[in-house]
Amino acid sequence: MNRVEDISKNAKAASINALKLSENIKNEALMAISQALINNKDEILEANKLDLIQAEKLLNNNQISQSMYNRLKLDENKLRDMIQGVIDISKLEDPVNKILWEKEIAKGITLKKVSCPIGVIGVIFEARPDVISQISSLAVKSSNAVILKGGAEAINTNGKIFEIISDALTSVKDFPLNMVNLIYSREDVNEMLKADKYIDLIIPRGSNLLVKFIKENTKIPVLGHSDGVCHIFIDEYADIDKAIKICIDAKCQYPSACNSVETILIHKNIKDSVYDKLVDALQVSGVKINLNVEDWHKEYGDKIVSIKIVDSIDEAINHINTYGSGHTDSIITENSENAERFMLYTDSSGVYQNISTRFADGFRYGFGAEVGISTNKTHARGPVGLEGLTIYKYKLYGNGDIVEDFTSGKRQFYK
Amino acid sequence: MNRVEDISKNAKAASINALKLSENIKNEALMAISQALINNKDEILEANKLDLIQAEKLLNNNQISQSMYNRLKLDENKLRDMIQGVIDISKLEDPVNKILWEKEIAKGITLKKVSCPIGVIGVIFEARPDVISQISSLAVKSSNAVILKGGAEAINTNGKIFEIISDALTSVKDFPLNMVNLIYSREDVNEMLKADKYIDLIIPRGSNLLVKFIKENTKIPVLGHSDGVCHIFIDEYADIDKAIKICIDAKCQYPSACNSVETILIHKNIKDSVYDKLVDALQVSGVKINLNVEDWHKEYGDKIVSIKIVDSIDEAINHINTYGSGHTDSIITENSENAERFMLYTDSSGVYQNISTRFADGFRYGFGAEVGISTNKTHARGPVGLEGLTIYKYKLYGNGDIVEDFTSGKRQFYK
Repeated sequence: MNRVEDISKNAKAASINALKLSENIKNEALMAISQALINNKDEILEANKLDLIQAEKLLNNNQISQSMYNRLKLDENKLRDMIQGVIDISKLEDPVNKILWEKEIAKGITLKKVSCPIGVIGVIFEARPDVISQISSLAVKSSNAVILKGGAEAINTNGKIFEIISDALTSVKDFPLNMVNLIYSREDVNEMLKADKYIDLIIPRGSNLLVKFIKENTKIPVLGHSDGVCHIFIDEYADIDKAIKICIDAKCQYPSACNSVETILIHKNIKDSVYDKLVDALQVSGVKINLNVEDWHKEYGDKIVSIKIVDSIDEAINHINTYGSGHTDSIITENSENAERFMLYTDSSGVYQNISTRFADGFRYGFGAEVGISTNKTHARGPVGLEGLTIYKYKLYGNGDIVEDFTSGKRQFYK
Repeated sequence: MNRVEDISKNAKAASINALKLSENIKNEALMAISQALINNKDEILEANKLDLIQAEKLLNNNQISQSMYNRLKLDENKLRDMIQGVIDISKLEDPVNKILWEKEIAKGITLKKVSCPIGVIGVIFEARPDVISQISSLAVKSSNAVILKGGAEAINTNGKIFEIISDALTSVKDFPLNMVNLIYSREDVNEMLKADKYIDLIIPRGSNLLVKFIKENTKIPVLGHSDGVCHIFIDEYADIDKAIKICIDAKCQYPSACNSVETILIHKNIKDSVYDKLVDALQVSGVKINLNVEDWHKEYGDKIVSIKIVDSIDEAINHINTYGSGHTDSIITENSENAERFMLYTDSSGVYQNISTRFADGFRYGFGAEVGISTNKTHARGPVGLEGLTIYKYKLYGNGDIVEDFTSGKRQFYK
């Protein structure tokens, strides 16, 4: 058994022990984590400095981008947000051991559907070291064991934060060992992807390439999205001011976000009134219009946008279902029939009317925390909150009941 | 593009067209199917005869079992049940376009979580030809396109039933083409397993080997269970009469079912009062006791049971979590604290108190129909009804809203 298989096996055992965790002990554990992070701020910043020295070299050689460097760099403000994030998660409703429904299926036989943790979750992320405390806290709150793999650039920071969290959890009486685990190398990831005997779900958070690689190389269910090719369709019944305002926000507010817009579709009947104004507004905001689109499925992740004129709402929907990534797509229209048509037929996680695609986010949806955004068609779709880290079991309470009595006709199930 | 890829692509297109289907048109389609099956009963029985001729040869050469032959054979009664099944599904609540919840996330911005079909579902099953009409009906009711692959033994019967269903659906005005598809060979299945671009979920219904093969050979999410290694734990606080009655039912009522018991665990403190009685009762019912257990994970699927004496409830739970298949496990006890401990710690789809494991079934749970039983830890677990064929999308309604107003602090989300 190799090291990662060993870690996975222990995490599986931890996940069984975690089934007993009460809400109180989980919140106590989260408080211990936040306090330990406060107490060890300086150590974290020092570890981060070691990573930044390396990163600066890579930055100077153009091996990493400035934005990656920025994501890696911690400061007092980011640390404060990180610690506040842990405290916020402690305040969320406990997602497990909730009775989702119960009913008597026959006289004296009660069936309960009860939420419970998934088990062991592997999370692979890049650069941002604040993800460790966020995911560890979500795992604790949902009674799941977690195996984390951070970016190589953040190895010192991640190692230090992990050490602090581990020590904090060990200090909590009756909290299971091995609930939070850290692995380091790309080889470790390859081993983790093979551990389908122990790991129940993999959540990759990072580049399209990372997510695609993981989906291609594991039998474990994967929750996430590889592409974020979002669209705005300006319907013939659009309010032009709203359309322009929303397009600017959806492209410029954070161009590298997965929920920023890549393609704007314009109904031919409104082209004359909106096209020039829109292009002007985009260009004033520094957006490049791609007029020679070769690949409508491309995610620019930058201040670039494609524009296409379409003959009908159905052509727009068809374009989105063909070239989109099932992430988030918005129609700008004052016609509610067209809005409903668009929202019904567009096969995406988020279908919007008169609002920026940038709203696709677990915090904005009011989930209190976000595990990631999923374009899956099973389990969880769209922004995923704590609930996405749960499944359910059925509890059935009887009193000596046997199936034979029902197949023989002696007893009946309720209708 | 090969034939199966072509079928899958067309099914994907059909699934988009199916998003518009109203409850009325779907029920009309189901009525058309049931009427067509009634009208063509004789043709179905004749096609079945062709399969039976082949099957008899295989039976005489011991290449198939008597029970497989029995499952393959249709008669008036089975046909009537099959047709009633279609009618029953038409009466179930429409599982899609249900608003699961809605809330205002900020002034004037409303978020709705709405159930919707998954898309394209591949179903692979063996022998029983009545599965075609059942799965086709479930797909119609849930607005999913489906690709079916039946057992080679039933090729004539399946082909005929498929033809009748296809013709019936074509006769329904505005019902999309290519919603129900049939493929034939093992090579077809291999092609289907590769069509992850078009197919969203695979449901294998059949032997452990079939399910294992499929899980190993596709990137498409698989819903189902390979093993059904169910346990009954007779706690030290068990009512002995209930224990014996339940063990007999769980083993003998239908020994080859996945929810029949394979291992009985007995608390050492109650052994003297229960062991001999239990063994006698089992033997009277023709059950063989396996005293030389080499593989606790084995599913007998026959009138054979393993018995083990355990020192504690925790040893029982640990045994089940180690050797079980996460299907269904029951504790026999009058002690509700022990029952809750068992039901919390046992990591299975169904955890029961004082009731036979044979109750693990969608119809018995009151779902009205069963897609299959899942031991997955994501999407759907336990007996899966129509709801398991759905996912959800988020609809967000705004009025020109942009994220910039929220990040700048000009507007706030509701808490």
